[in-house]
Amino acid sequence: MIPDDEFIRDPHVPGPTKLEVRCLVMCLAGLRGHEVAVDVGCGTGGITLELAERASRVYAIDRDPRAISITGRNLEKHGLGDNVSLMNLDAVEALEGLGEIDLAVIGGNGGELRRILELASERLRDGGRIIVTAILLETKYEALRCLRDLGFEVGITEVSVSRGRMLDRGTMMVAQNPISIIYTL
Amino acid sequence: MIPDDEFIRDPHVPGPTKLEVRCLVMCLAGLRGHEVAVDVGCGTGGITLELAERASRVYAIDRDPRAISITGRNLEKHGLGDNVSLMNLDAVEALEGLGEIDLAVIGGNGGELRRILELASERLRDGGRIIVTAILLETKYEALRCLRDLGFEVGITEVSVSRGRMLDRGTMMVAQNPISIIYTL
Amino acid sequence: MIPDDEFIRDPHVPGPTKLEVRCLVMCLAGLRGHEVAVDVGCGTGGITLELAERASRVYAIDRDPRAISITGRNLEKHGLGDNVSLMNLDAVEALEGLGEIDLAVIGGNGGELRRILELASERLRDGGRIIVTAILLETKYEALRCLRDLGFEVGITEVSVSRGRMLDRGTMMVAQNPISIIYTL
Amino acid sequence: MIPDDEFIRDPHVPGPTKLEVRCLVMCLAGLRGHEVAVDVGCGTGGITLELAERASRVYAIDRDPRAISITGRNLEKHGLGDNVSLMNLDAVEALEGLGEIDLAVIGGNGGELRRILELASERLRDGGRIIVTAILLETKYEALRCLRDLGFEVGITEVSVSRGRMLDRGTMMVAQNPISIIYTL
Ligand SMILES: Nc1ncnc2c1ncn2[C@@H]1O[C@H](CSCC[C@H](N)C(=O)O)[C@@H](O)[C@H]1O
Ligand SMILES: Nc1ncnc2c1ncn2[C@@H]1O[C@H](CSCC[C@H](N)C(=O)O)[C@@H](O)[C@H]1O
Ligand SMILES: Nc1ncnc2c1ncn2[C@@H]1O[C@H](CSCC[C@H](N)C(=O)O)[C@@H](O)[C@H]1O
Ligand SMILES: Nc1ncnc2c1ncn2[C@@H]1O[C@H](CSCC[C@H](N)C(=O)O)[C@@H](O)[C@H]1O
Repeated sequence: MIPDDEFIRDPHVPGPTKLEVRCLVMCLAGLRGHEVAVDVGCGTGGITLELAERASRVYAIDRDPRAISITGRNLEKHGLGDNVSLMNLDAVEALEGLGEIDLAVIGGNGGELRRILELASERLRDGGRIIVTAILLETKYEALRCLRDLGFEVGITEVSVSRGRMLDRGTMMVAQNPISIIYTL
Repeated sequence: MIPDDEFIRDPHVPGPTKLEVRCLVMCLAGLRGHEVAVDVGCGTGGITLELAERASRVYAIDRDPRAISITGRNLEKHGLGDNVSLMNLDAVEALEGLGEIDLAVIGGNGGELRRILELASERLRDGGRIIVTAILLETKYEALRCLRDLGFEVGITEVSVSRGRMLDRGTMMVAQNPISIIYTL
Repeated sequence: MIPDDEFIRDPHVPGPTKLEVRCLVMCLAGLRGHEVAVDVGCGTGGITLELAERASRVYAIDRDPRAISITGRNLEKHGLGDNVSLMNLDAVEALEGLGEIDLAVIGGNGGELRRILELASERLRDGGRIIVTAILLETKYEALRCLRDLGFEVGITEVSVSRGRMLDRGTMMVAQNPISIIYTL
Repeated sequence: MIPDDEFIRDPHVPGPTKLEVRCLVMCLAGLRGHEVAVDVGCGTGGITLELAERASRVYAIDRDPRAISITGRNLEKHGLGDNVSLMNLDAVEALEGLGEIDLAVIGGNGGELRRILELASERLRDGGRIIVTAILLETKYEALRCLRDLGFEVGITEVSVSRGRMLDRGTMMVAQNPISIIYTL
């Protein structure tokens, strides 16, 4: 995994998803080398770069040009990107233009979660998987609901991570915000 | 309980202990109106003010004069303080000068935890209790160990709280750092 | 607070709400001695008993006769209950029959949360408060939504508690399930 | 990653380490295919199997013959084990007999943590790493301390995971006990 502080950042773009969460997403994704993955809302590229190392082809979608730019720079910095298509489009539009996929990771939705999940699910090959990362209560709820409406069995895992900060007087645990991962089974 | 944002703050003084933690400390303290309590490391006064509302007498100790000053101002702001003695001393020195107590809450120790716990325990009346709040791993470990060495049965509760922040796009849970409460039984 | 293991239990009735959560609910409730409180879904009586110690009158509602019975026995065991009315009714029916209240704590809803919150809110005196405790994701979401629809400003606090279990080889932290408290401001 | 329920279990043997934690340990381990790894306290084989999939050679040590037996059966069940040496020995004795290693994962220590860490550190190749998983407060504290005494820079990450249980009435988050991962940098 790529350490959090090895991502170039843009103050206007969220991410990268914290290492521990990227790690869990990748575990749950179980990507194999020949598979095709989509990163919806690529932000800083936290997930895109991990997918790039594991999939045959990655579509990284973000409607914010700054996200596309910073993801591009992070791919380059880490010598990745040959198998990545950056798409500066709204998720719905971008997904409509795609063919079959094996994995969709949804890290941003802008209120279009239901439509995004529908489109992703329509493009899913046999054995394909959808993963939503959610920091909003509403996203958790809607992801569960929409994926069920689409006929999936769904799991949800919530992770709270704290990392030790080494102070002179001792080791203080510093909490990261809890994040939920909703995934099809 | 006094809301967190109703405490006057000094940027150089830690605290106040977050409402949820103050609340749990007070629950575990089980103070009765005739009892005498000590707040070791009063900081901003978070614990001192809660004790002042529930005990007959409170000794608030801090070696930092800014902590004593801000605790004094917070007592005044909330119309409390008639039953509070502010002691601008090192904890060891202050405790040596005190008589019998029913409750000691230790929120700061400056590396003197063992000695502080010994002194507090010597001053404890029948049925008295000691509570340590700890954000450092080392403090948790030492509080457990020292209190056991002093013959106490000990409990430890770790609390992770997140509070919803209401954003336009939904409810984001924002984590507070985990805190441990170590208490004699 | 009443320790968890001092409640008589019925294997068919959930509760009592864990001490740490009861404690936080009571902090957030800020009950004053002259106020009237309702406990919707009293279960084992965890919340009812705490309310009984702090309010002038408590209505404890549960549609399950076993919950009413065990709450009654717990009140008796702790010498409480003079100010408590036990109501073996569905929440909606029970609330329709009540007059003005200062506090409603909702610990069970059976799919009727929206109607329960409407009824509670209609009965609320100036300065009155509603608190929902939720272990289901769906309840959190709906409580937030319904209370906002009713015009309230709402807060949500999620608490994860672990308690140390003292083993021969050391102190193991045992996690309780996370619980959310949704409250009107 | 191997799902938790695809491990054969022996009621007398702890483990397997939960999927989410195995996943994080593997992320932090950053194993490369030519490396040699040791699993100290292999238990049910949770960590051993993951190492077997990623290292060139794995030494799985446990003083409990039932742990060795169940780890062996789990390796077989998953078609792994060609590169695994099972060692039914006390950790100290086993480590004394080993040559150079790239990674040591310590999941059990039986009070010998300091000696185990010394031995592991002596056998570590340039760029080698040590990872301790800890559920006991005392193990966290001692792992941090001993690794620092041995001259390592150390990180600690604490993870609390809850998984959704799908009930008729909604999604209940069920907490796993918090676990800490202490790792050399
Ligand atoms: N409807 C939509 N279409 C495309 N991108 C969207 C979108 N809604 C939100 N986004 C994008 O989703 C991103 C969420 S932040 C994602 C962070 C990323 N996973 C990382 O690890 O770096 C933002 O950059 C936002 O612009
Ligand atoms: N040995 C010692 N003697 C006295 N005060 C000490 C001390 N070691 C640390 N402290 C004090 O302990 C305080 C810890 S911060 C306490 C915050 C407080 N509970 C609140 O809620 O506001 C600091 O102000 C520090 O000055
Ligand atoms: N619509 C409804 N009307 C009345 N009671 C209800 C209800 N839906 C659920 N309940 C009750 O809500 C309870 C939830 S368990 C509550 C536990 C309680 N707070 C304690 O600390 O002991 C159950 O006993 C259930 O019977
Ligand atoms: N000193 C020691 N030497 C060898 N094994 C030890 C030991 N102290 C503890 N153990 C072993 O450590 C194990 C801890 S349980 C480990 C679980 C394992 N990581 C899994 O995922 O399946 C136990 O099986 C115990 O027998």
